[in-house]
Amino acid sequence: MKFSIERGELLKAVAQAQSVVERRNTIPILANVLIEAEGSSVSFRATDLDIEVVNKAPAQVLSAGATTVSAVMLHEIVRKLPDGALVTLSDVPASGRLTIEAGRSSFNLATLPKEDFPVMATSEYAANFTAKAGVLRRLFDKSKFAISTEETRYYLNGVYMHVAQGEDGPVLRCVATDGHRLARIDAALPEGAAGMPGVIVPRKTVNELRKLLDNDEDDIAVSVSETKVRFATQVITLTSKVIDGTFPDYARVIPTGNTRRLEVDAAEFAKAVDRVATVSSERSRAVKLSLDEDRLVLSVNAPDAGAAEEELAVAYADERLEIGFNAKYLLEIASQVDRENAVFMFNTAGDPTLMREGNDTSAVYVVMPMRV
Amino acid sequence: MKFSIERGELLKAVAQAQSVVERRNTIPILANVLIEAEGSSVSFRATDLDIEVVNKAPAQVLSAGATTVSAVMLHEIVRKLPDGALVTLSDVPASGRLTIEAGRSSFNLATLPKEDFPVMATSEYAANFTAKAGVLRRLFDKSKFAISTEETRYYLNGVYMHVAQGEDGPVLRCVATDGHRLARIDAALPEGAAGMPGVIVPRKTVNELRKLLDNDEDDIAVSVSETKVRFATQVITLTSKVIDGTFPDYARVIPTGNTRRLEVDAAEFAKAVDRVATVSSERSRAVKLSLDEDRLVLSVNAPDAGAAEEELAVAYADERLEIGFNAKYLLEIASQVDRENAVFMFNTAGDPTLMREGNDTSAVYVVMPMRV
Repeated sequence: MKFSIERGELLKAVAQAQSVVERRNTIPILANVLIEAEGSSVSFRATDLDIEVVNKAPAQVLSAGATTVSAVMLHEIVRKLPDGALVTLSDVPASGRLTIEAGRSSFNLATLPKEDFPVMATSEYAANFTAKAGVLRRLFDKSKFAISTEETRYYLNGVYMHVAQGEDGPVLRCVATDGHRLARIDAALPEGAAGMPGVIVPRKTVNELRKLLDNDEDDIAVSVSETKVRFATQVITLTSKVIDGTFPDYARVIPTGNTRRLEVDAAEFAKAVDRVATVSSERSRAVKLSLDEDRLVLSVNAPDAGAAEEELAVAYADERLEIGFNAKYLLEIASQVDRENAVFMFNTAGDPTLMREGNDTSAVYVVMPMRV
Repeated sequence: MKFSIERGELLKAVAQAQSVVERRNTIPILANVLIEAEGSSVSFRATDLDIEVVNKAPAQVLSAGATTVSAVMLHEIVRKLPDGALVTLSDVPASGRLTIEAGRSSFNLATLPKEDFPVMATSEYAANFTAKAGVLRRLFDKSKFAISTEETRYYLNGVYMHVAQGEDGPVLRCVATDGHRLARIDAALPEGAAGMPGVIVPRKTVNELRKLLDNDEDDIAVSVSETKVRFATQVITLTSKVIDGTFPDYARVIPTGNTRRLEVDAAEFAKAVDRVATVSSERSRAVKLSLDEDRLVLSVNAPDAGAAEEELAVAYADERLEIGFNAKYLLEIASQVDRENAVFMFNTAGDPTLMREGNDTSAVYVVMPMRV
C-alpha cells in the first residue's frame, strides 16, 4: 500500500476516526484505524464494536492495500504536520511498519494485521430515507440534553427516534428523558421513513453524528433496522448499534391539561435563573418561581450561604402560583429557545410543567417541579 | 457599611481576591474577602495566610464600615450581573448579612465578623525600589517554567530573586530550577535594590503577581525583607511570605566551557521536536539530536509504538555529536525564545547544555541531557 494525500483531507478523516476510538482498550486492535487504499480514494475505518465510522478521502493511490495503525498517534502526527503538506503513507510488510513522510519529517508506526480488524457486519435495513442535515441537527441538538446518565436505566441513555402521530399527521420524532425532564422534537416525516422501527440512538452515536451535520443543506442518508442505524454523507458513514430496550411510554408524561400560561423572554429568564442560583448549594439548586399578574419573582434561599431574588416583567394573567425547579433543568430548557419567547404552561406546584417556544408545538419540553 | 460601585470595577477587584482564596479551607474565614469601605474607595482583601492581596476600587461610600463574605460567591454573583450595572452593597448588622443589589436583582450573603479576618502583619522591609511591569514580567515569565514541583525540595518551589554580579555590573536576577533544567534571567538593577536580600518567591505568588504586570509601563513598587516580599501598583498590593530555605549555588551548574555552537530557528526547532516526540511513550519522551555540519537530525525511537525522524537546516560547524534530551524540556526552553535564533552550546553528550537567545546573555537556560 502506498498513497499521497493532502494533509487537510487526511486530518479531517483521521480526526473523526480517532474520536470513535475509546481511550482505554483491552483489545489492542480497537485502538487502531483501518486504512484501505484503492482506486482514487482511501478509507479510514474505526470502531468501538458499537459504533463504526468510515471516512473516505481523495488520494493519489500508488499501490492499493490495507493496514491498521494507532488512531490517536496517527491523528497527533497529522495534526502537527504543517498546513498544506503532502503526506505519503506506505506500509513496509517486511517490518510490519507504516511509514508516514511529509517534507523532511518521517515517521514509522507499528501496525496490526488488517485481518484482525473487526469490521461491522452489513445489515438489512427496514427503512432508508434522506433528510437534510439541518433537520436532523435540530431533532438531536434540542433533545440530547435530556438523555439520562444513569447506567442502570440503559433504555434512557439515548434519543428515541421514531415515527409518531403529530397534530397534522405523521412526524419523525426524537424524544429523550431522564425522568426529571423530557424533550420531544418533531420534524416533517421524510419520504420512505414511514415504515421505520423506533430506535434508541445511544448518546455517543448522537455526539458522533453531530459532526456530520454542520452544513444545513447536506443530504444525509439514514437507514434504520431493529438493531442498527446508519447515517451517511458522501464521505462519512456512521453505523451504530441501537440500545436494546424499550423506551417508556412518554406520551402520558406530557401534560395536556395545563392552563396557566407564562410567557417570558427566554434569554432574560435564563440569565436571571443563573444569577439567583449562584447562592444555592451545588446539590439542590432549587429556584422558586412566584407568579402574580404579569410579574415573576425568582428566588433562592440557602440558609447557610444566603438568599437571592430577582423580578422579571412577564405575561401572566392567571391566579398566584409558587413553584420550584432545579435551576440546571430550567437553564437547559430555556437555552433551547432561540426564535420566540418561552411559553410555560403550569398546572399546580406539584405537577409537571410544559415549556415550548411561542405556540410552536414541534418542540415541547416537560420538567418536573421540586418542593421549595 | 453601604456603598455603590460600578460592576466592572467591582468584578476586577473581587476577581483577584477570589483567585488567592484556596478552594478548600479548614478555617472558614479564609474563604472570605474582607470588604472595607471608607472615604471614596473600598478595599477588598483576601489571604491564604501566605499571600495577601488588597485591591482598592473607587466607590461612592454612603456609610463607612467593614465586613467579610465568601469571595467565590461574591465573585460569581458580580460576574453574572449585567455589564455597566451599578451595584450597591450594604451590611445588615442585625442579621449578619450583606445585601447586594443591582437593578431588579437582590442577594444577601452570610457574613463573618471582620475582627476574625487574619490581616497580615506589617513588616519592615530591607529594600524598596520601583521597577517597570514589563521588566518584572520578563524576569518571572521566562524563569517560572523551571520551578520544581517536588514538594520535598521546597527550596526549589519558587523563583530565586536576588542581586547578582552580571557581566557589566550588578543585576536584578531571577533563577529557577528543578535539577533537570535551569533558567537565569537578568535585568538592570533598579535604584534602591542593591541592598535587598535574596528571596525565593513561591510559585503561587509568581502566578498572582503576573496579574499586576499586564501593562509594560506601569510602575511596580517592590519591597523585600528576609521573610516577605511585596509588589504594589496604585490599586493592588500583593504581599507574600517567601520560602524559608536556601537556594542552591546555581552558578556551578551553568557550564562555561561549552564550545560547540548550534544556531537554529527556535520556532521551527520547537515544531520539529513536538512532531518527532509524538511517537515516544509518555514517560521518557527522549529526543535524540544528531549534529553534523550545518545539519540537525531529530529522532525518537520507541520500540513498541514506532519511530520518527526530522531534518533541519542549522548553523553548526563543529564535530559530529549525538545528544538526547527530554522533549518537554526542549520545547519549554525553545518557547522562551522570541526575538532571535536559539543558540545551543554543547560540550559532550553527558554534560549540561546551555541555551540562549542569539548572543544575549541576559537570559540563559541550562538543560541536562538524557542517555539515548
